[in-house]
Amino acid sequence: MTALTLPGLRAMDAADALKAFRARFRLPEGLVYLDGNSLGALPAAAPGRLKAVIEDEWGRGLIRSWNAADWISAPRRAGAKIARLTGAGEDEVVAADSTSINVFKALSAALQINTGRTVLLSEAGNFPTDVYMMQGLSALSGGAAQTRLVEADKLMEALDDSVCALLLTHVHYKTGAMHDMAAVTKAAHDAGALVIWDLSHSAGALPVELNACGADFAVGCGYKYLNGGPGAPAFIFAAKRHQHVFPALSGWLGHAAPFDFRDDYQPAPGIDRFQCGTPGVLGMAALETGLDLMLEADMAAIRAKSQALGDAFITLVEQECAAHGFTLASPRAADRRGSQVSFRHPEGYAIMQALIARGVIGDFRAPDILRFGFAPLYNRFEDVWDAAANLKAVMDGREWDAPQFRARAAVT
Amino acid sequence: MTALTLPGLRAMDAADALKAFRARFRLPEGLVYLDGNSLGALPAAAPGRLKAVIEDEWGRGLIRSWNAADWISAPRRAGAKIARLTGAGEDEVVAADSTSINVFKALSAALQINTGRTVLLSEAGNFPTDVYMMQGLSALSGGAAQTRLVEADKLMEALDDSVCALLLTHVHYKTGAMHDMAAVTKAAHDAGALVIWDLSHSAGALPVELNACGADFAVGCGYKYLNGGPGAPAFIFAAKRHQHVFPALSGWLGHAAPFDFRDDYQPAPGIDRFQCGTPGVLGMAALETGLDLMLEADMAAIRAKSQALGDAFITLVEQECAAHGFTLASPRAADRRGSQVSFRHPEGYAIMQALIARGVIGDFRAPDILRFGFAPLYNRFEDVWDAAANLKAVMDGREWDAPQFRARAAVT
Repeated sequence: MTALTLPGLRAMDAADALKAFRARFRLPEGLVYLDGNSLGALPAAAPGRLKAVIEDEWGRGLIRSWNAADWISAPRRAGAKIARLTGAGEDEVVAADSTSINVFKALSAALQINTGRTVLLSEAGNFPTDVYMMQGLSALSGGAAQTRLVEADKLMEALDDSVCALLLTHVHYKTGAMHDMAAVTKAAHDAGALVIWDLSHSAGALPVELNACGADFAVGCGYKYLNGGPGAPAFIFAAKRHQHVFPALSGWLGHAAPFDFRDDYQPAPGIDRFQCGTPGVLGMAALETGLDLMLEADMAAIRAKSQALGDAFITLVEQECAAHGFTLASPRAADRRGSQVSFRHPEGYAIMQALIARGVIGDFRAPDILRFGFAPLYNRFEDVWDAAANLKAVMDGREWDAPQFRARAAVT
Repeated sequence: MTALTLPGLRAMDAADALKAFRARFRLPEGLVYLDGNSLGALPAAAPGRLKAVIEDEWGRGLIRSWNAADWISAPRRAGAKIARLTGAGEDEVVAADSTSINVFKALSAALQINTGRTVLLSEAGNFPTDVYMMQGLSALSGGAAQTRLVEADKLMEALDDSVCALLLTHVHYKTGAMHDMAAVTKAAHDAGALVIWDLSHSAGALPVELNACGADFAVGCGYKYLNGGPGAPAFIFAAKRHQHVFPALSGWLGHAAPFDFRDDYQPAPGIDRFQCGTPGVLGMAALETGLDLMLEADMAAIRAKSQALGDAFITLVEQECAAHGFTLASPRAADRRGSQVSFRHPEGYAIMQALIARGVIGDFRAPDILRFGFAPLYNRFEDVWDAAANLKAVMDGREWDAPQFRARAAVT
């Protein structure tokens, strides 16, 4: 294989079908941002849109904006946009609450649908909040539900007739390894289990076909590849056939007639019953701005570029940092990876801090993972070069071996 | 009693100790806004603060802002500010999620603490989401919890030895009637029940003394009198003695060590365990701006002005609209009211729409309530005059009797 060079990578940028999208984000000059899988960048349209929401809709419209600016429809409007990115029907997705809360809704719905089965199954090492919400629901259920975690390669054999629902993150947050959604869903269904997909690291990063795969429920995060802003509202998908459940988190905005203010909960028809409390309007507005931008792009082009960026990064790190003890933690095959590449290193935390100090932002996940996310709408092949070159400099100069890089911050 | 006059009310404004606060909000010229109990007005500082969060912290700081801008502490920082307004300890309140979700947390905590008792008791006609969340939890519990609703005047006798928790809204959303928090809490405790107070219509509107009253849990809304913006994060109070429960909504940010990414949920010590998913940063920033402004004001002065505004409005409506069939729905005694005055009228919906068309904004609550909220930081006695004068004009001219005012909007 020919060694990758900076001119070669720049030529790939020049030929990139998505290159115009980078200017649609505000990115700090000189920064190489490979953490869009943790917090997506600021869409250039967001400050103006939010200024209008804050000053005009809130400031001048005040309470009237629930109707006049149609704030009340934001969860469904954003949900319909997410549906287009995830192969769902527009009446099957709603933006609401956090991923954690939506996991709870999906799990408790599954327990109602798949009665007689009590096990909530997931993968050991799945993103913690998915597992924690299972544990909370299990504790609350007084024995009516139990949490079971098994290693990823034991999932299929764990699908016995006690399993009510299998909850998996489609793309693993640490390794970027991607489950085969169609195959896993089919296997679970064959075993009588429902499947809940956490799309936090998939939505906006790669093609997702929830209905083609027969998925039952899905949840996901608005602030990663969807560029919805810090702590953006999350989303939940419930297949049409499952929209009859009584929501455990039965808040007033999931009611059939919330403004009748009746004493008895009557769930709204359809996906609306998965709303709960009053939506955060500022967060919804930022999320919609990110979604509108993403919907302008072609998802096949996003996926192709994402794979090429990841491949290039693996090649460069192995080419430039061969002696420095990194182990690839992600699948080498691009079709088995999401839109990130992770390496393991025993000094991963300090190395990442030293890299950040050089203006290359990835992140660290305990105990030893350095994560690099590729957001094809704004990351360039040149960024991949810069990241690898700076990583080499950090390692060659042992820059990471300094107290300021070893001291752990509150958020890693 | 001497009739109230516009010059007299203007003199009260001139003497108002809080009058300087009005300029700290951006209010549309010419609008009389008496709906701060539904959505608080825009603090003048909020657009600038949010611009900084959006453009600097999100846009330039990106993922680093969780540490550098201390986003991660926003729920506790806002919680400590709310604690000062509600007579709680700063380590007893956290801003998080919606009021609905926080009701669920408090109810499920109560079921863990007060074991052997299964009834969740509330008032018929309480704000629906409180009741709906009880119903959802009861359904989820498979019989381990039951919802019981009784009329307000039957609450005390309903406190039998099956009652686990009594959930009440301190100030009723329709009538503005205020429960005696100390007396009700004591009666419930004497009967062996815990008490959960919904402070949505109290926090920021009047003095609340959660700990002096011995309250067990409380929840409340950030977007009413706290001026936190549309759909602002809500809050939950858990008395120190109750912070040992295993949270049913056990999301990753309630974990003792969220960034260790372990498979087993270990609740954080103290109030942090009542956090769940990633907080909405934009919403938190707006909420903190509202809280900071409110904390500059004296709560006793807020309460005194609120009562005077309400008294003046009752007097004026009865003085100016005596022949038009309004019935006072709020307690006449100011010390039994929150910071709103409600009137009943069979044509309430259309009347309110006609009033809004004249630039006087209150709201309607089915079936027949016209609600007028008084936010002492920005409402003036002159506003009260204008509201009553316009109400008189709407009634004298039968302006309400027009198709455009009878057609119901999505949000009332």
